Amino acid sequence: MDIQEFVERSIGCWRSQRSAHHLAFSHFEAIQSEIEIVALTADAPEVIALCQANCVSLDTIVSPFQMSWQGQSDWDENEVKGSCILVPVPESPQRGKLLRDQGYAETIAAVGDYSLTEDGTFVLNTAYDRAAAEEKIWFVNPNVRCRVSLIKTSAGTGVVTASFSSEIRQEVKH
Amino acid sequence: MDIQEFVERSIGCWRSQRSAHHLAFSHFEAIQSEIEIVALTADAPEVIALCQANCVSLDTIVSPFQMSWQGQSDWDENEVKGSCILVPVPESPQRGKLLRDQGYAETIAAVGDYSLTEDGTFVLNTAYDRAAAEEKIWFVNPNVRCRVSLIKTSAGTGVVTASFSSEIRQEVKH
Repeated sequence: MDIQEFVERSIGCWRSQRSAHHLAFSHFEAIQSEIEIVALTADAPEVIALCQANCVSLDTIVSPFQMSWQGQSDWDENEVKGSCILVPVPESPQRGKLLRDQGYAETIAAVGDYSLTEDGTFVLNTAYDRAAAEEKIWFVNPNVRCRVSLIKTSAGTGVVTASFSSEIRQEVKH
Repeated sequence: MDIQEFVERSIGCWRSQRSAHHLAFSHFEAIQSEIEIVALTADAPEVIALCQANCVSLDTIVSPFQMSWQGQSDWDENEVKGSCILVPVPESPQRGKLLRDQGYAETIAAVGDYSLTEDGTFVLNTAYDRAAAEEKIWFVNPNVRCRVSLIKTSAGTGVVTASFSSEIRQEVKH
């Protein structure tokens, strides 16, 4: 599986159940949300802007997409809501960079390193100033995705939060 | 990583936070438990008995071990408790069978197919009469393991329950 195929399989609406384990104090957080993943064209203004901000040439990118989410946590009364633009920049069929814009809500702009393992798992590592994130996403079947996200200390050894999402494809409403 | 190294890294006491997602009705279940994994010798009576029950020759097995757990779910008032014997039977450095005895409590005897991916993930598939289980376990660092378990319909396509455990190694108490 290459990144184009991975993105293509991800396009759609997903109902997500997410559990976050805050490890230091053994807290469980439960989040339910709807996620929408939409393909963008390489000439969309927001894609061009994100590439320019990262000094990336438009002819090196593939499969740009937008991800939006809206949901509810049992920890925080506020609605969880956000959106961001994501642009893969392959360096080989199995790995590359993933650009992400600031979006709105809690997202911050970042460049991550992705790879695809032989068994079709998408692995994304992103370094921030004071933390690092590792994410694994894989398809159980065309309509079920699993996602494990780890937030680690910037040294990358200590795990602060481990979270797991099970995502089920929703019927498209007409 | 081969199965011997994987088992060796797993030996010890672990504090586990597990979230189970019951997908059909979007239910979250939270389970906290202690897991103990202890190495056994190939001549332990329970290992010999399990091999005989499966017509497996003792000189083909490696790294037998016992896993015990004890914990509490927020769904069921009863204590979650059990123990089982596990015996790997490698067929190559990267794959083989995993024998499991009936143990006590909710475990049932089974033979699963395991493999180890290039990035060190242990993958176990077990077919039962009316269901199939797929489990992935990997180390984030020597003291943190992640485990994703999927219970599927026997055809292997529908996912009934998806669960995630984050497991943190506990100090050995003297």
